Amino acid sequence: MTRKKQVLVIGFGKDHCTEVAYDAAYQVGLEIAKHGAILITGGLGGVMEAASRGAKDGGGFVIGIIPQDDKEMSNTYCDAVIATGIGFARDFVTAYSADAVIVIGGGAGTLIELSAAYQRKTPIVAVKGTGGVADRFVDEYIDDRELEKILSEDSPEKAVSRAISLTNLE
Amino acid sequence: MTRKKQVLVIGFGKDHCTEVAYDAAYQVGLEIAKHGAILITGGLGGVMEAASRGAKDGGGFVIGIIPQDDKEMSNTYCDAVIATGIGFARDFVTAYSADAVIVIGGGAGTLIELSAAYQRKTPIVAVKGTGGVADRFVDEYIDDRELEKILSEDSPEKAVSRAISLTNLE
Amino acid sequence: MTRKKQVLVIGFGKDHCTEVAYDAAYQVGLEIAKHGAILITGGLGGVMEAASRGAKDGGGFVIGIIPQDDKEMSNTYCDAVIATGIGFARDFVTAYSADAVIVIGGGAGTLIELSAAYQRKTPIVAVKGTGGVADRFVDEYIDDRELEKILSEDSPEKAVSRAISLTNLE
Amino acid sequence: MTRKKQVLVIGFGKDHCTEVAYDAAYQVGLEIAKHGAILITGGLGGVMEAASRGAKDGGGFVIGIIPQDDKEMSNTYCDAVIATGIGFARDFVTAYSADAVIVIGGGAGTLIELSAAYQRKTPIVAVKGTGGVADRFVDEYIDDRELEKILSEDSPEKAVSRAISLTNLE
Repeated sequence: MTRKKQVLVIGFGKDHCTEVAYDAAYQVGLEIAKHGAILITGGLGGVMEAASRGAKDGGGFVIGIIPQDDKEMSNTYCDAVIATGIGFARDFVTAYSADAVIVIGGGAGTLIELSAAYQRKTPIVAVKGTGGVADRFVDEYIDDRELEKILSEDSPEKAVSRAISLTNLE
Repeated sequence: MTRKKQVLVIGFGKDHCTEVAYDAAYQVGLEIAKHGAILITGGLGGVMEAASRGAKDGGGFVIGIIPQDDKEMSNTYCDAVIATGIGFARDFVTAYSADAVIVIGGGAGTLIELSAAYQRKTPIVAVKGTGGVADRFVDEYIDDRELEKILSEDSPEKAVSRAISLTNLE
Repeated sequence: MTRKKQVLVIGFGKDHCTEVAYDAAYQVGLEIAKHGAILITGGLGGVMEAASRGAKDGGGFVIGIIPQDDKEMSNTYCDAVIATGIGFARDFVTAYSADAVIVIGGGAGTLIELSAAYQRKTPIVAVKGTGGVADRFVDEYIDDRELEKILSEDSPEKAVSRAISLTNLE
Repeated sequence: MTRKKQVLVIGFGKDHCTEVAYDAAYQVGLEIAKHGAILITGGLGGVMEAASRGAKDGGGFVIGIIPQDDKEMSNTYCDAVIATGIGFARDFVTAYSADAVIVIGGGAGTLIELSAAYQRKTPIVAVKGTGGVADRFVDEYIDDRELEKILSEDSPEKAVSRAISLTNLE
């Protein structure tokens, strides 16, 4: 297997994304591209769009995995669009496709992706100060089974470096 | 539409279910049956099994919605088994099928079902003192959109009464 | 396990259902109820609705498993509604939940459910003369692996009797 | 939107793939790469593996969308692996992600993907002489709604050219 590392970025959707989170997501996307990794997102707005824009500006490759059955519903910064047609159950598809996860803000949907990644013991790094789920679960386990601690870093650069260093791929 | 109310019970799976949670779940299942509602669960062990046993002892009807594609993988207290074959993405199917949700303990999987129900603004009642997710999110919203508050009651009886009173069905 | 047999009825949706198929589906639903089995359908119109009406008139129990995330989208003849939210991928959920399948007419969606049931070697009986998929694949295998032959009968009564006699449940 | 065209190749799985189909799939993958399109497959063996090998030899980009929740289950010729965790319901994800579909042999699973693509009116081209589904449905519609005719060509080169010419993307 010679495939590149796949880093998933999750966080606020378009309906409640803050400027702080949007900017952090752009930087995270840019850094992922610089590291030569593939960016995976849920393919829609807010943090998903911002990270995709950053990765494109950094010359990276972006895969958007959307809930709808119509590829045209994705944001316009995707190199490839996976149209699942399974609604928000696609949160499992994004989570399972990640070698590592970066969390920027986020609400209930982000919490679902985070929990799904946790169940598979995938490395998760939150960007501190971006609000929502990213700040709520810092340095904690999701449940009493303590499968994988949610790590945190105070900058996009550090978060991406750490996430990539923790992947199982060589 | 003359269908009965469908109450979903979620919580600890078999691998980390406590005796307190198991007993509470049995009582919750029994109460749901007494109210003439249909019990829906994820069809496996722990809280899912306990609630199903209670509902059967109360003469109720139980539907287990399992991750596997083989109906034989369910617990033996189901009147009907829905074999989804979609893995833990079935957490969305249980959540969307609920007119109301009762939470008893629970870990990451429970948090996923809870978040999915929250996104649809389905009434959610936690049984206090059962640990895990049920105690962690009491009287809170899952995210800043404040779509639906997680309510709580200190007994199985009260939790079931309140959950059923909050359903939209007549 | 003391659960009842679960018989899935598949066929033409509302947009291209014939009167012949609708009438046959009603009779099939009625017979399933008389045999004391649970009727499972995709929960929408056409053959799904007709079979559900028949089963209700026969005093049976009907579970509708719909593509949408909103239970209100089902037809009004369901005793329980499973809202999957996974779109037409729910064709796998209906197929996997069946102890036996009855086919009445049907197009591409019916062919998907049929193929999914075939892959699990679930007994399948087509009602002859109802058109579409039911007449196209009679007494054939879906593919060269010959996992399970599509059987056929020339009346709803015989189709139901045969389907139920072929289930693995006692 | 500047994304490349996404061509899905479907057909026999590893358990019943013929040499004729395997060779045709390799050529199809090679041609897709030459046209600068992205190859999408179900990520496993047989036709999926052969097409992926061809695309890699042609310098193309391959995305494998697998049923499992573990990326390691894919074949080793993928540039990116989407691990859905939803079992064979992933047949809808592959179908919905396609701008065009090429069919090479194939059994029940192939028929499901074909039917899902048909429901969305996605262009479908079968490679003649490769057996199974590819030869069975040539120049036909899947059902009476006649949404999209299954086209055919007698060589991998022609099939790829035609499929790509029929996509809606510019």
